[in-house]
Amino acid sequence: MQEGISETLKDTLAEVTDLSRAAALLEWDQETYMPPGGVQSRAEQISTLLRLSHVRFTSEEVGRLLDQLEDDVAKLPFDSDEASLVRVTRRDYDEATKLPPDLISEIARAGSMAQPVWQKARREEDFSLFAPYLEKNVELNRRIADAIGYDDRPYDALINRSEPGMTTAQLEAIFAELKRAIVPLAADIARHADSVDDRVLYRGFDPDLQLAYALGLVKRLGYDLERGRQDLSTHPFSTAFGPGDVRITTRVSRDFFNECLFGSIHESGHAMYNQGMGQNIDRTPLWGGASPGVHESQSRFWENLVGRSLPFWRHFYPSLVATFPEPLRGVDEEAFYRAVNRSYPSLIRVEADEVTYNMHVLLRFELENEMLEGTLKVKDLPEAWNARFKSYLGLNVPNDREGALQDIHWSYVSFGIFPGYTIGNLISAQLMEKIRTEIPDLEAQIGKGQFAALLGWLRKNVHRHGRKFTPNELLERVTGKPLTAAPWIAYVQQKFGALYGLQAARH
Amino acid sequence: MQEGISETLKDTLAEVTDLSRAAALLEWDQETYMPPGGVQSRAEQISTLLRLSHVRFTSEEVGRLLDQLEDDVAKLPFDSDEASLVRVTRRDYDEATKLPPDLISEIARAGSMAQPVWQKARREEDFSLFAPYLEKNVELNRRIADAIGYDDRPYDALINRSEPGMTTAQLEAIFAELKRAIVPLAADIARHADSVDDRVLYRGFDPDLQLAYALGLVKRLGYDLERGRQDLSTHPFSTAFGPGDVRITTRVSRDFFNECLFGSIHESGHAMYNQGMGQNIDRTPLWGGASPGVHESQSRFWENLVGRSLPFWRHFYPSLVATFPEPLRGVDEEAFYRAVNRSYPSLIRVEADEVTYNMHVLLRFELENEMLEGTLKVKDLPEAWNARFKSYLGLNVPNDREGALQDIHWSYVSFGIFPGYTIGNLISAQLMEKIRTEIPDLEAQIGKGQFAALLGWLRKNVHRHGRKFTPNELLERVTGKPLTAAPWIAYVQQKFGALYGLQAARH
Repeated sequence: MQEGISETLKDTLAEVTDLSRAAALLEWDQETYMPPGGVQSRAEQISTLLRLSHVRFTSEEVGRLLDQLEDDVAKLPFDSDEASLVRVTRRDYDEATKLPPDLISEIARAGSMAQPVWQKARREEDFSLFAPYLEKNVELNRRIADAIGYDDRPYDALINRSEPGMTTAQLEAIFAELKRAIVPLAADIARHADSVDDRVLYRGFDPDLQLAYALGLVKRLGYDLERGRQDLSTHPFSTAFGPGDVRITTRVSRDFFNECLFGSIHESGHAMYNQGMGQNIDRTPLWGGASPGVHESQSRFWENLVGRSLPFWRHFYPSLVATFPEPLRGVDEEAFYRAVNRSYPSLIRVEADEVTYNMHVLLRFELENEMLEGTLKVKDLPEAWNARFKSYLGLNVPNDREGALQDIHWSYVSFGIFPGYTIGNLISAQLMEKIRTEIPDLEAQIGKGQFAALLGWLRKNVHRHGRKFTPNELLERVTGKPLTAAPWIAYVQQKFGALYGLQAARH
Repeated sequence: MQEGISETLKDTLAEVTDLSRAAALLEWDQETYMPPGGVQSRAEQISTLLRLSHVRFTSEEVGRLLDQLEDDVAKLPFDSDEASLVRVTRRDYDEATKLPPDLISEIARAGSMAQPVWQKARREEDFSLFAPYLEKNVELNRRIADAIGYDDRPYDALINRSEPGMTTAQLEAIFAELKRAIVPLAADIARHADSVDDRVLYRGFDPDLQLAYALGLVKRLGYDLERGRQDLSTHPFSTAFGPGDVRITTRVSRDFFNECLFGSIHESGHAMYNQGMGQNIDRTPLWGGASPGVHESQSRFWENLVGRSLPFWRHFYPSLVATFPEPLRGVDEEAFYRAVNRSYPSLIRVEADEVTYNMHVLLRFELENEMLEGTLKVKDLPEAWNARFKSYLGLNVPNDREGALQDIHWSYVSFGIFPGYTIGNLISAQLMEKIRTEIPDLEAQIGKGQFAALLGWLRKNVHRHGRKFTPNELLERVTGKPLTAAPWIAYVQQKFGALYGLQAARH
């Protein structure tokens, strides 16, 4: 590799990274500490930073440097830092330069016009207000797909932007498999709803103690507070400004235990991913999550596969009882484990449990595709939503606010985001299946509150690579297979079969 | 004015402003919430933002636009937004472009090499370690002065960078006047030291209550918490990210009352200045303090002329006693007022009281000038420092850590900063003299806890103008005179004469 050229590219990429990390801090501050009066200046600043970052990254100079470097790295191993840097930067560069500036502005304008209308439509529970804006957004998504290009289905272009390498066909096959397994499982659980009682979670837990307990717990999992911190925000999130500064936020409700603790575990799962990325890829496009789906796999891994497991509570429950003796009086660890795993069909995706969550995603994936391909008209969306909701989860949707107007995503032009949530769930189980073969006494370790081997495995196999590999590449490398639904299906059938005492036939 | 050209310039200046405000938020976060691991990435990010801001601002395009605009605004009033914008931007532009890039890099390198040595020299109380680095810094300051240019004294070039329009001659005359008045006053006070007892301040005050009381108090003064907030940091400061987001930090000591309360008032004085700057000059070089000295005048105004006045404590003392009944037992408002105004010679500038503070600055001003002009050799600095300290404040300096190695300023190449502190003190009294003629019942208002008229006056006459006027221009406009020491001398002679029961002859 021509050293000089590579350094020029690296300097530019470092600058681009610095700008977007600075923007991320401005966003973090906006959600945590910024006084109300700061809104306007903050919007200006973030917009300037992101614009400069985009302009710098999409410069012709970067394209020229990549052209030169692609020959140089052709003989280097696929997973070498240099070859990966050129390959991933090229992918980002092509994606960033394929959208014409006019389309980018139109997308930004459409989003900022649609969002207040979406909010109004929600308040008034009137989808028809939002329909014309969603129609515009569907059209813009089609134009994005056309600009990016695709072989088979327009959705391929969109899903590729967030989950590189995934195809609509791959996802359709996976969702079909999920539907076959989960619709009957959820129905079976609903018939045995009485088996699990979660009223203990609503008995009232002191908020300050919840925050302190959650922070102590995520520290035990391996979230490094020398390189992170926890603050409060309306919507919990995780964000990273570099390998040494990866933060989480949480919220806390006296009246519902799950929010703070499982929210904190979830966000610390995201954060441990970023904390585990190699210094060797810092300040390059390789530093970051392989995809939103892979990122979500880390948060769901810790939240559900670890944090909602019985060995986990065998270890932590005594200290939880010592912290909250009153609300936990008369509840043993197994009852508590059952409570935090209660599964039931619900209207709102972000509140859904492990079993039903993917059905919410499936619904959106299908509807996005149909709108994009014109087989579903926007005006017919609520009807389609409600019919499918009934069919998948057995619930009647009482209004569009809790139905087709539920998510903010469709108000800013961005189809193809939702599948990442399910991809994350599936990856977490696919990784766990592999981990169990490599750390045979994992359950015993978790039961003793020991997470170092587990985190070490994730660091070595997932975290340190950052964006070097696409989701499927990563999974093939680590588990020998691309994304597959089987491990996750087996996991929920086994776990919830036992929890709800379902017929052995199904698990 | 050619509208199109002006908009181009304004867009560039807005971008430059956004970048430096973003850098300021990154610095705020670094001092308040950043985890220890964030140091390296944060340094990279701030450096990138400031470099891009500098590059953008010093571009030839900005110079060309200014050339064109200078003709256009020639006929506009001096204080119009347009004429002021072009005039002040030109001043900044010339200053920023006059230093050759090589010199800028050399300054940065010298600073980062000198600082750790300065810290080591302090620890070991050994000036000789630091001397070669200070020699280098003196040489660099000379080269800065040469690059910027000056008519009379090299220090003129340096002082002009922070206090535009000020000359060494003007400051020398002012400091001479101060010396004549303050050296005997401080000596007189020292002879009557027993008149004031401040032991109440060390009786132990609950830190959380101190923070809450201080925040409530600065809110009463007029610091708008919808557009600001208070956080903790090791060294208190104020910082602004726009008209709607101006923050202060404070620190709190159980064992010394003054730190939190007067620190908070001081910083809120800075912050109210920024909160009062006009929206019409937002995102331009006009938005900001007229100079560090003028900024300091606002903080010292509220801290000392308001916050250390008797009417102020007549109003606030009852609520202070209600908050801290134990430590304040048996102390009445006048005794408390006397305690917070205790004056005594001390070694450390940042801990000095109102009377002696300017002597610390005078000392540094003289020594900087002499080093710059070669009449004082760096190796002889400690001796000169100690001799002058004895002569001005009557104290023997026990070691260089508390003497010539006291301030960080000389470790990063920047002479000409210290006078701003005294300029601030003098301006605060010069403004107050004028205010008393325009708000005759000011004392009564303060005694009732009413600050709206006072803040309104400062807004109208000082704050809203931002950087439109130089310090002397502003003072001429508001008080009819350039900077003058007389009002401040009269103020301390009267106040401390009364406090210490000095002979009427002196006040």
